[in-house]
Amino acid sequence: MGRWEPNARGRLAQAALALYAEQGFEQTTVAEIAKQAGLTERTFFRHFADKREVLFYGSELLQDLLAQAVADAPASATPMDAVSAAYQAASALIQENPERARLRDAIVSANAELRERELIKLAALASAVAGALRDRGVLEPAASLAAETGAAVFKVAFARWVSEPGQADLSGILGAALEDLKGVLAERAAI
Amino acid sequence: MGRWEPNARGRLAQAALALYAEQGFEQTTVAEIAKQAGLTERTFFRHFADKREVLFYGSELLQDLLAQAVADAPASATPMDAVSAAYQAASALIQENPERARLRDAIVSANAELRERELIKLAALASAVAGALRDRGVLEPAASLAAETGAAVFKVAFARWVSEPGQADLSGILGAALEDLKGVLAERAAI
Repeated sequence: MGRWEPNARGRLAQAALALYAEQGFEQTTVAEIAKQAGLTERTFFRHFADKREVLFYGSELLQDLLAQAVADAPASATPMDAVSAAYQAASALIQENPERARLRDAIVSANAELRERELIKLAALASAVAGALRDRGVLEPAASLAAETGAAVFKVAFARWVSEPGQADLSGILGAALEDLKGVLAERAAI
Repeated sequence: MGRWEPNARGRLAQAALALYAEQGFEQTTVAEIAKQAGLTERTFFRHFADKREVLFYGSELLQDLLAQAVADAPASATPMDAVSAAYQAASALIQENPERARLRDAIVSANAELRERELIKLAALASAVAGALRDRGVLEPAASLAAETGAAVFKVAFARWVSEPGQADLSGILGAALEDLKGVLAERAAI
């Protein structure tokens, strides 16, 4: 697939992100993306099903990465430790290219259909993490609770990181958010 | 609006659910729903924007219910207690008509587009709960963490309740799930 077009996928993705940010997702056509990348529409469709897919093609990879991190956690790790390791792996990947992640997030946030798609991908990540926990012998509902809670904490941490452009340390925000949550859940009513 | 058609909205919603369950959401037309309810298409569109909306028109109501439950929690309640009260209020509403809730869930689960919409509605509920917590003086990120975690626990509890048709007590499952999560988060690594 496209051996004669070095890094066609990466060039298309970069061109798409730049155009979506500049003129809006709805207003951008595949023809424009291909042109900006110096490639043809046909090449675009060899790499992506549609212009929406450019924003989500990494999600299967991310899913595998998270499941692998859960599997690789030491045998002594608690379910929540394994979940934490998984979302920390996602954070590390995101921090490899923070500008891309922020740009992408701004595009997704501006469009209801893309926001819905983002939520379903996050839900799929949580399902994958829950499955990986069950493979480690964690029972239900603990597996799903840990995985879904990890996704919730990641969502809050990511939103915070995105809203503070000076703040580069997603990993640190995520770790602090998990500690904060433990505090919130351990709190007793002041009766 | 439709005073001359007693409970038109309820009749349309009931007819739609029955048809979606029987012949599938995609295959059902607004004309069929109206006919089954003994009403006109025009009446349908006075009550619902489209056939998808029949499955989601209750969600603003639910959002208000949750926010109100957070606001009504005693001053001594912890953020998580207030969140728990909110999702318990949602559970009570669902349990008023468990068959309807299960039928609706089966229809939504069978369709990717509806599943996406369901997730965005759940996300909107969590945002409303977080807002209501901030109105009580709860700071960020505690407000978002408590609200998103509550949504995660509710999601797991609801899935469990739906998968066990004999099990009527969503409220009990939700309470137990929250206790389970507290246990999961308090667990220490066995190093």
